[in-house]
Amino acid sequence: VKGRASWRGRKVLVTSGATREHLDPVRFLSNASSGRMGHALAAAARARGARVTLVTGAAEVPPPKGVRVVPVGSAREMLAACLKALPGMDAVVAAAAVGDFRPASPSARKIKKTGKPLTLKLVPNPDVIAAISARKKKGRPLTVGFALETHDLLDNAREKLAKKNLDLVVANGPESLRGETTKAMLLAKNGGVAFYTGAKTGLAERIFDVLGESL
Amino acid sequence: VKGRASWRGRKVLVTSGATREHLDPVRFLSNASSGRMGHALAAAARARGARVTLVTGAAEVPPPKGVRVVPVGSAREMLAACLKALPGMDAVVAAAAVGDFRPASPSARKIKKTGKPLTLKLVPNPDVIAAISARKKKGRPLTVGFALETHDLLDNAREKLAKKNLDLVVANGPESLRGETTKAMLLAKNGGVAFYTGAKTGLAERIFDVLGESL
Repeated sequence: VKGRASWRGRKVLVTSGATREHLDPVRFLSNASSGRMGHALAAAARARGARVTLVTGAAEVPPPKGVRVVPVGSAREMLAACLKALPGMDAVVAAAAVGDFRPASPSARKIKKTGKPLTLKLVPNPDVIAAISARKKKGRPLTVGFALETHDLLDNAREKLAKKNLDLVVANGPESLRGETTKAMLLAKNGGVAFYTGAKTGLAERIFDVLGESL
Repeated sequence: VKGRASWRGRKVLVTSGATREHLDPVRFLSNASSGRMGHALAAAARARGARVTLVTGAAEVPPPKGVRVVPVGSAREMLAACLKALPGMDAVVAAAAVGDFRPASPSARKIKKTGKPLTLKLVPNPDVIAAISARKKKGRPLTVGFALETHDLLDNAREKLAKKNLDLVVANGPESLRGETTKAMLLAKNGGVAFYTGAKTGLAERIFDVLGESL
């Protein structure tokens, strides 16, 4: 594979896991990401000889050895950690399931239950991969986004590719969230489309194979 | 210790972990429980010879060997699983961090982000340990609740003990949520108050010691 050798010494940033958006000191809004995909990506890049920074939210699996791990909580913390790590990166693969919303006014105390309904105002979070893509110069870093959709997968993924100026979008359904395996569609900037079914570790290899051709 | 031997052959129900209340297929409201306290309780009861059912939400640690594990998602699923397991139980120890609220109208599709704020209506969840306590006959099963408070710990714990008709309340702060150790106050129905600082496994032993005196 042409792309395989070319990762040696490259700098790769991977995001992984789920962000947590607190509404009070104990409660938060999150999502069912296990961190398996992101951690597999970090391991794959490392195995190719890249220098890997893994910015990760909550995950059910431990991070791989040999990568620099930056643990974060919220989406805004993830964005800050990514922007700090960004200079000199050759590729950024954003596999984290970033919360799109956060509570508008988190409480410093645990919200007491009163037996009555509660209205929670949510505000949009910054878009981590879009913010990174917006800083591209001469096409660098290469950026890869994930699209998790329950409906209109292809349309939503195409829109994401264009709107966020990504080099590759990996689109999958919610059934890919927890397990060891996944079913994904890869949409490249050049119009290429590929399908993948199998282990997340294998998808990680495929992503770096595809990306390696653009290095 | 008087209570230690008396657990042989007793039936114990333990709840553990964090419930998850979905707002759509990928997003949920949850809390930072690691499952360490509940899992330690299940292991302690098992080690004393009890027959243990562990009803558990999301947890960062695997359940102990030798107990019957019932995995659940939401608070309502936890309540249903507990009520089903309840007949014949000698003690119920509710260490799970049960979500007090759930989204009023969860969406079957992933909610699309629009860049605009979102208002989320939450409704109260059933109170699992209160519902179990309400079914007590002749003081059985013994019921133990946990009170996680950021403020007015003692007052809130006392109120919980009385209002939910519990035999024991274990009160602690949010700093106890994640780690291996904890700092707790034990309030017994008979007015006894004890303090504990140390490993969660040690607190689990202490709870069954105290409870054993009422068996």
